[in-house]
Amino acid sequence: MNRISDLFKMKYPIIQGGMVWCSGWRLVSAVSNNGGLGLIGSGSMYPDVLREHIKKCKKATTRPFGVNLPLLYPNIEEHINTILEEKVKIVFTSAGNPKKYTQILKDNGITVVHVVANQKFALKCLDAGVDAIVAEGFEAGGHNGIEEITTMCLIPQIKSIVDIPLIAAGGIGSGNSILAAMSLGADAVQIGSLFAASKESSAHINFKNKIIESNDGDTVLTLKEITPVRLLKNDFYFQIENAYKNNASLEDLKDILSKGRAKKGIFEGNIIDGELEIGQISSSISQIQSVDQIFKKLIDEFNSKIDYLKDIRL
Amino acid sequence: MNRISDLFKMKYPIIQGGMVWCSGWRLVSAVSNNGGLGLIGSGSMYPDVLREHIKKCKKATTRPFGVNLPLLYPNIEEHINTILEEKVKIVFTSAGNPKKYTQILKDNGITVVHVVANQKFALKCLDAGVDAIVAEGFEAGGHNGIEEITTMCLIPQIKSIVDIPLIAAGGIGSGNSILAAMSLGADAVQIGSLFAASKESSAHINFKNKIIESNDGDTVLTLKEITPVRLLKNDFYFQIENAYKNNASLEDLKDILSKGRAKKGIFEGNIIDGELEIGQISSSISQIQSVDQIFKKLIDEFNSKIDYLKDIRL
Repeated sequence: MNRISDLFKMKYPIIQGGMVWCSGWRLVSAVSNNGGLGLIGSGSMYPDVLREHIKKCKKATTRPFGVNLPLLYPNIEEHINTILEEKVKIVFTSAGNPKKYTQILKDNGITVVHVVANQKFALKCLDAGVDAIVAEGFEAGGHNGIEEITTMCLIPQIKSIVDIPLIAAGGIGSGNSILAAMSLGADAVQIGSLFAASKESSAHINFKNKIIESNDGDTVLTLKEITPVRLLKNDFYFQIENAYKNNASLEDLKDILSKGRAKKGIFEGNIIDGELEIGQISSSISQIQSVDQIFKKLIDEFNSKIDYLKDIRL
Repeated sequence: MNRISDLFKMKYPIIQGGMVWCSGWRLVSAVSNNGGLGLIGSGSMYPDVLREHIKKCKKATTRPFGVNLPLLYPNIEEHINTILEEKVKIVFTSAGNPKKYTQILKDNGITVVHVVANQKFALKCLDAGVDAIVAEGFEAGGHNGIEEITTMCLIPQIKSIVDIPLIAAGGIGSGNSILAAMSLGADAVQIGSLFAASKESSAHINFKNKIIESNDGDTVLTLKEITPVRLLKNDFYFQIENAYKNNASLEDLKDILSKGRAKKGIFEGNIIDGELEIGQISSSISQIQSVDQIFKKLIDEFNSKIDYLKDIRL
């Protein structure tokens, strides 16, 4: 009995975050075939590319999978049409107001989950009628909240005001941290970085190698004036840092960010000039593993840890 | 069997962080009398005041207690002399290099623990021969690390390189989060904010009321160029923010910070102009409780949560 596993009809309460340039049909179907929930990251896909990945995913797995839809995506209506036409059953929305699209998705029989980083947006989710909430902490990779609330603080804060199923994200990279998230009140977890570095991730090998080589303190949440994003510190980041030191305007920052930086870094493997979006837990990731190996390890760790703790009482 | 409870000969693996202007003998002895470990916060005390608090604490409890010693304290040699003369048995050092004073303290039969915020300093602790490590995440109140590593990421990272007992700090304000910390690999927890807002805390009632009224997103880690510190956003903080917007120099920032800001805010209750050091978990604290009540609640929550989770296997 787990509210999230039941909601999505999957074996394990483990969701793979829908990440730009990482989560195409190969990763998504591998996660779903392992008993988790894979999410296609539509934020980096043109509408026809999204359609292709949905079609391929349907062929590669009979298990449930979903699509992550960042609400700041420029051609969002097209993505929504694709999702409806392809009869996708699960959509995770993020980076925007859940009130805008939840109803139309739900009217079409879709289970809707929204990603939040504070209590205010969790309450908006309840108003919007979403089926579950992802609460994503400051340590998470990619786009993130401005309040810098960490997973350790965010999960209890969201749990205290919502009754619907709750998924923890940010800093989760082991079975131990799945148990930690559940201790804090989450029903399930969404894992990003670990899957970004998996064999089935569509990210470039240079990016995956950069993840497994990274140390603690190597990521930073930056560009808070545009959209806060956590990334690995590389030459591109140091350009941003220099711009800040020279009192860059918003326009200067946007010029540096320019277009296609995430694609350049994550997909094309330009680890010098690209934007390397990844979570703080990347420093705990030391090898590129298959999704099968990742699931086996997560489950073994979780079960060993609860076996170890189960008889402790204070 | 718990390595930290055994080390300090206490009942519960719960340590009260030694906080400036909050943790005098009343709070410390109440925590120790409840079966935890109380720590006198010597960072805000003149040497004679520290001696007085140690003496009063000895009278108020027969249980173990300790002193927190920030290594950036200006008259540190005097504090160390006081600690040795008063035969304090436990010292937690922080904000500095553990190699400097660990040996002299240990040579005098003192159990030494050092607070770290990254792996590099954890390794220095091992070299210095400390008895245990506190790993303190980005969400913690007061002085903090520059790398912004959250408790969720920091504990597994430190655990992966150290074998000695490990104490988690930052974002811990419930029995659920004690269990989360243990799931991540900690033996025990250090709790600050919850005790700062307790009845026995020597903080001003205005500060305690400000804590229980605070919401998520109300704290921020700032003054990273001087010493990073997490505090509640108030008029004093907005002065700092404005200074940043106007490209303040290090000297400008130091002028704003000036002397006695933490005393003014925390001890004298000037919540407008004072520096209100507190952790991000403060938004989950909704009442001023006695240390007795806090311990009872933490223990009940922990035991209920492990009862709830103990049979779950993935």
